[in-house]
Order: sequence, then C-alpha cells, then structure tokens
Amino acid sequence: MAPRQEQSETRIIAVLVDNEPGVLARVIGLFSGRGYNIESLTVTEVDPTEHQSRITIVTSGTPQILEQIKAQLSRLVPVHKVSDLTREGDYVERELALVKVSGKGNKRVEALRIADIFRARAVDSSHGHFTFEMTGKSDKLDVFIELMRPLGLVDVSRTGVVAIARGPAAL
Amino acid sequence: MAPRQEQSETRIIAVLVDNEPGVLARVIGLFSGRGYNIESLTVTEVDPTEHQSRITIVTSGTPQILEQIKAQLSRLVPVHKVSDLTREGDYVERELALVKVSGKGNKRVEALRIADIFRARAVDSSHGHFTFEMTGKSDKLDVFIELMRPLGLVDVSRTGVVAIARGPAAL
Repeated sequence: MAPRQEQSETRIIAVLVDNEPGVLARVIGLFSGRGYNIESLTVTEVDPTEHQSRITIVTSGTPQILEQIKAQLSRLVPVHKVSDLTREGDYVERELALVKVSGKGNKRVEALRIADIFRARAVDSSHGHFTFEMTGKSDKLDVFIELMRPLGLVDVSRTGVVAIARGPAAL
Repeated sequence: MAPRQEQSETRIIAVLVDNEPGVLARVIGLFSGRGYNIESLTVTEVDPTEHQSRITIVTSGTPQILEQIKAQLSRLVPVHKVSDLTREGDYVERELALVKVSGKGNKRVEALRIADIFRARAVDSSHGHFTFEMTGKSDKLDVFIELMRPLGLVDVSRTGVVAIARGPAAL
C-alpha cells in the first residue's frame, strides 16, 4: 500500500520581529531552504516605539513541513510571535492593487464601468489611461485584473495579503 | 577638509522577477549584505501566465550605494526589470492597513469618528472592538494609527508601500 500522501495547504502566517537588518533574509531562508515558494510576502514596521515589524507570508505546503517551519521561526532570536492565521481560526484578509489600463473609446468606457462595479477608484488618469486603486480579497483582485486584461492592461502593482484575527484580541 | 558626506535618501524600487523559489532571498541579500535595512517590502505574483512577481522595496541609503544595489539587481538572472520610481519621476504610492481598536464608551465613539474622517471602513466589529481597513499614503496611515493608539489600539497589519508610475506607460 502506498504511503498516504499529505495534501498541500495554503497558509497565512504572521510574524512579529525586531526591525533590524538581516531578519527578513533569515525568515525567508527558512522557506527557500526547503524549496518552498512564498506566494506573497509583506513586511513593514507596525510599532515605531518598539521597532517591531510584522511580516505576513502566504505559502503552501504539507502540514508537517509547515509546522516545522513555524517551530523554527519561533526559535529565531528577533522573532517575538508567530501566528498561523489560517489554523487559528477566523480572520479578515485584504490586499491592495494599483491597476493601470491604457485604452481608448469603448475599451475606456468599459474599464470605467467594471471599476465602478468593483468599487475601484481612479487615482491617476489621462485621455489615454486610468490607474485604479482597488482593495479586497485576493481572488476578487484577480477577477478585476483578468477583466481589465483585454481592455488594455499595462501595469499591475499588488501588495500581497495582509490579515488580522477577527474579534477583539491582538495577534 | 572633511570629505563631503553623502546624504541618505529614501527610495521606492520596483523589481520584476520570475516567480521561483530563492529569488526573494537573493534580492534581499543584496540589501542585508550591506547592512541596509528594508523599510518595507511587498512581493506577489502580478502575471500568472508569465509567472512573474513584482517586488516593491522601500529603503534608505546614499545615492552611490543605492545605484550599486540597483546595478547588481539588474544582473540577477531571474530579474527582468528594475525601476527606481523615486528617481524616474512621478508616481502614485499607496498602502493598506488593518487596524484593530478595542475600546468602550467614549473611546469607541471617538474611534468611529476618526475612522469616518479618514474614510476608514469597519471590516469586523463587536461590542468591544472595531477592525478598520484604510488605504492611503503611508504617512496618512501613520497619523491614523497614532490617533487610534490612546483609544485602545491592539493590533496593526500593514502591507507596506506599492507604487506605480503616473501616466500611460508600464513599469
């Protein structure tokens, strides 16, 4: 009988670290060292007084390897907290995209109509283009970008996922 | 006479790379290897057909070192394009924050009033807390978060900066 194959899962992991050079490289090394791809990553300072940064990583892998990575993350010196939002329960996730579309005539009208439906907001525009700002869950952003592709999509910049636990408690 | 000290500058650098394991670690290594801190970084796939990801990095340093880093970035094999948005001209920058505030009574009312002024939107709430979603330039997010601190700020998750050139052209 073949051994049971562990299924790959997607996880959102938040890591609170001291904001000092080299931390991010070490955190990422735990993933890339196993050939694990990081689907998205965001990092920025969230507490200027304590000089702490929050890293949000979206990655896929088997539960066993993901637990190993989390355990190793917790042992890194500048890491204060590791939180597996996907496992720990309910959370809100969001992403922001800037989407540039260069089209004229009907394509321009259609781009604006779709943006309106998705509540995307024009943050830059000329006779020949729009740049839309849009926020939402990543799959909604994916749909918006795919709809814009045939209308003259020229550039996309996305933040990747950030997430926060539902309810009153902190990370 | 003392040598002229080069002033430190803050730059937003966008890098288009093949989405494969290890790329991010190599890109970050160019910064951390010089002791350069990354103020914020976002990375996510922007072209699923071509499997390309866009990395947006905010960093500070002397112009000379920053030019060196950019030149080295351009020479990395999976890097398709390096764009220094700060130097190349006009751009739109945005960031998204999820901000959780647990307060009751007057503090709760005040939190909601400030959120309204900043056009932040409650994405999760209970009798005891709000989680707000807010987008804007990073300094505006900083102000919002500082105003929320005395009102019961418990958690913050921010994406870091993304940016896109103004006008119709791509990166």
